[in-house]
Amino acid sequence: VNPTQIIAAKRDGGAVPTDRLEAFLRGYLDGAVAEYQMSAFLMAVVFRGMTSGELDVLVRVMVESGATLDLDHVAGAKVDKHSTGGVGDKVSLALAPLAAELGVRVPMMSGRGLGHTTGTLDKLEAIPGFCTDLTLERFVHLLDEVGCAMIGQTAEIAPLDRRLYDLRSVTGTVPCIPLIAASIMSKKLAEGLDALLLDVKVGDGAFLPEEERALELARTMVEIGEARGVSTVALLTAMDRPLGRAVGNALETREALECLHGGGPDDLRQLVIREAVEMTRLAAASGELAVEDADEVALRRRAGKLLDSGAALARMRRMVEAQGGDPGVVDDPTRLGRAASVADWTAPRAGIVTAIHPRALGQAVVEMGGGRTRLGQEIDLTVGFELAVSPGDRVKRGALLARIHARDSEGEARGRNALQSAIVIGEEEPTLRPLVSHRVTRADIGVPPRD
Amino acid sequence: VNPTQIIAAKRDGGAVPTDRLEAFLRGYLDGAVAEYQMSAFLMAVVFRGMTSGELDVLVRVMVESGATLDLDHVAGAKVDKHSTGGVGDKVSLALAPLAAELGVRVPMMSGRGLGHTTGTLDKLEAIPGFCTDLTLERFVHLLDEVGCAMIGQTAEIAPLDRRLYDLRSVTGTVPCIPLIAASIMSKKLAEGLDALLLDVKVGDGAFLPEEERALELARTMVEIGEARGVSTVALLTAMDRPLGRAVGNALETREALECLHGGGPDDLRQLVIREAVEMTRLAAASGELAVEDADEVALRRRAGKLLDSGAALARMRRMVEAQGGDPGVVDDPTRLGRAASVADWTAPRAGIVTAIHPRALGQAVVEMGGGRTRLGQEIDLTVGFELAVSPGDRVKRGALLARIHARDSEGEARGRNALQSAIVIGEEEPTLRPLVSHRVTRADIGVPPRD
Repeated sequence: VNPTQIIAAKRDGGAVPTDRLEAFLRGYLDGAVAEYQMSAFLMAVVFRGMTSGELDVLVRVMVESGATLDLDHVAGAKVDKHSTGGVGDKVSLALAPLAAELGVRVPMMSGRGLGHTTGTLDKLEAIPGFCTDLTLERFVHLLDEVGCAMIGQTAEIAPLDRRLYDLRSVTGTVPCIPLIAASIMSKKLAEGLDALLLDVKVGDGAFLPEEERALELARTMVEIGEARGVSTVALLTAMDRPLGRAVGNALETREALECLHGGGPDDLRQLVIREAVEMTRLAAASGELAVEDADEVALRRRAGKLLDSGAALARMRRMVEAQGGDPGVVDDPTRLGRAASVADWTAPRAGIVTAIHPRALGQAVVEMGGGRTRLGQEIDLTVGFELAVSPGDRVKRGALLARIHARDSEGEARGRNALQSAIVIGEEEPTLRPLVSHRVTRADIGVPPRD
Repeated sequence: VNPTQIIAAKRDGGAVPTDRLEAFLRGYLDGAVAEYQMSAFLMAVVFRGMTSGELDVLVRVMVESGATLDLDHVAGAKVDKHSTGGVGDKVSLALAPLAAELGVRVPMMSGRGLGHTTGTLDKLEAIPGFCTDLTLERFVHLLDEVGCAMIGQTAEIAPLDRRLYDLRSVTGTVPCIPLIAASIMSKKLAEGLDALLLDVKVGDGAFLPEEERALELARTMVEIGEARGVSTVALLTAMDRPLGRAVGNALETREALECLHGGGPDDLRQLVIREAVEMTRLAAASGELAVEDADEVALRRRAGKLLDSGAALARMRRMVEAQGGDPGVVDDPTRLGRAASVADWTAPRAGIVTAIHPRALGQAVVEMGGGRTRLGQEIDLTVGFELAVSPGDRVKRGALLARIHARDSEGEARGRNALQSAIVIGEEEPTLRPLVSHRVTRADIGVPPRD
């Protein structure tokens, strides 16, 4: 295979024959294709996109480049969830034990926060002792024992994705939907899943803010999953405001635990239940989980009861204990680490909260030391914001809008700065995105529904 | 400067600020910008192009990356010519001495053949002893002594261009007009010229066959030259058929010498005269050459006389001698090396020669061992074709169409194969491109003519 010819074919907009693309990718793995050739190819993909056939090859070679989980001897339907990341998105922490309680096996591999969004791994590590660095063997064992387990993406999984991601991050080839979709899906498809739920955020605080682009990403990922034989459903969920009211790692962990206590903000509870129901239906459809009443309304009611009864919380406690964490924190979330300084931010005028811009808050958390600007950076898990209002609320002058959790007065000042522009008070009722605006399934990409 | 930001700016179609582009290019020279970053940038340029300002920076940094010729102490107007390359294009060999005879100083730096076109250096080396590998000092000395000198592009000139060209050739970023234009012009602008004539070939045998693309290349190069203060004129010349009747290195050298003897094919003579006149007018316009009658018709007549009188030939003899070549060959071109096997190719039917496809002939020369598929390859200078007809000629069945000069029977067979498809005999008079179809000057790119 001549690498230059492959690059030229992509540059000129033609589809690269799958066998040649595979040889090109394997050539990159073994050094026959140089980094400078791959980066030129990736830039051509930014402009030309990839066909379904090309994407399938890319994802397959990514998966085959590393270890894959063999979950065959774990009974039941294995279903994971991936979120493209948003501000205040702590769904996974409550979702995994709830879905497990509904009978789904949840082998969840998550990432760390990067940029303006936090990551599940960091939130888990806010629980003293919680270990996200298990061997794949131990991970599979816990999945079987507890019904859910949560670890970080290991270097063994899809190393080609890691190499390509590192190259993309220094060659201006990150914002490209097929490459983003392949990167996400390769890691998930290495997990040996029966099905996968994708939460694609849309709005100001999302990685891809525009609905059209978010939908394209959702469709591309569903297409990749289905092509590889994994039932995949994507939900487009609102990120025109933060999810819930806590922004920042430990604060978000606390809110997720409150949700498992039957409390927490309504939008968080709704989304956790919706996603747990989607995962249960995917599990039932796979034939690996017998569900008495797979009707959506019945499942939602059941999920709500599992949150209110403490059953999902008990599952969380088992998982935390099994992964070395302090179960006392699960029972009493107020025991989570607290920032050195907590300050109030009040309404400068009366009116309606017309917007809470999530991206500004997420970026402020990074500036306050609670997020990363580069991989591997140490962060302060305690900093962030507790919002006291939601968009649409009517407030009086001087009313509490938010609490700033900061390391020091400099961090607090950055927090105030962000809140000043992030929380908008005006006169008109805001128009907000529905919590879940779209549901993308195999039928939406032209594949007939399964029998 | 953050290389990734520069790449992203180009990817998104914005103009890169000139100071940042310069830092990026210098970063590449000193290793701060990686090859994989440059290749991604170049691919983004393929899709987004470059602004005039960006091109000017690129060309300037290319020129400044290496040695530049200082021709200030060589009296007179220094004018070079560059051809984008075509099949049978042996103009330079006759042009340099003719222009010198007209009073122009011609410091000509040429390349070797690559792909389906031959190169001036190879043609010069068909003359026994001729050395194209002079030091820059000796080159300048000969220019002053003889009035013209011809050498190869040395590694000292525009090394950034060489690095970028090597990278482009393995990353699918060669066919990109601004990058092609910058590559050509950087080498010419390092020569310390007063003016430059560009011969941009158009048609099947040209590097860029389409007229629109050839015109764009011509305009881009004129713009670059004028921005750097070098008067630049580009002619679009016909390459829908071979130039002259000889194709292949030594055969072309012989035809160029015949032209200097006052003979040779009419199209070759016309183009050599036209280009010599253009160079003389550029020299006159620079104020460094006093021309009695700068009228075009008068100059053409003068140039024709210099070919017919043997004056240009005598200048060629002086140059060949000064560069170590055998002057006897200049006087008797039949003494040039001859291929082992010479075979006739005759008309399979009567009719009109409706086309002679140059690219097929050029590619055949490569296959017959007379051209390169990679840099540095040894080639056989003697192989090629002598055409006996031109498009539009009426031929009888069995009439001689061409002679194949080959190393062996295998080469001869390849030659026959090529001629079979390259020379088309039909019924209708062909429509051919005018020898010179366009003349692009500073006025055509929106710069007012010089006073």
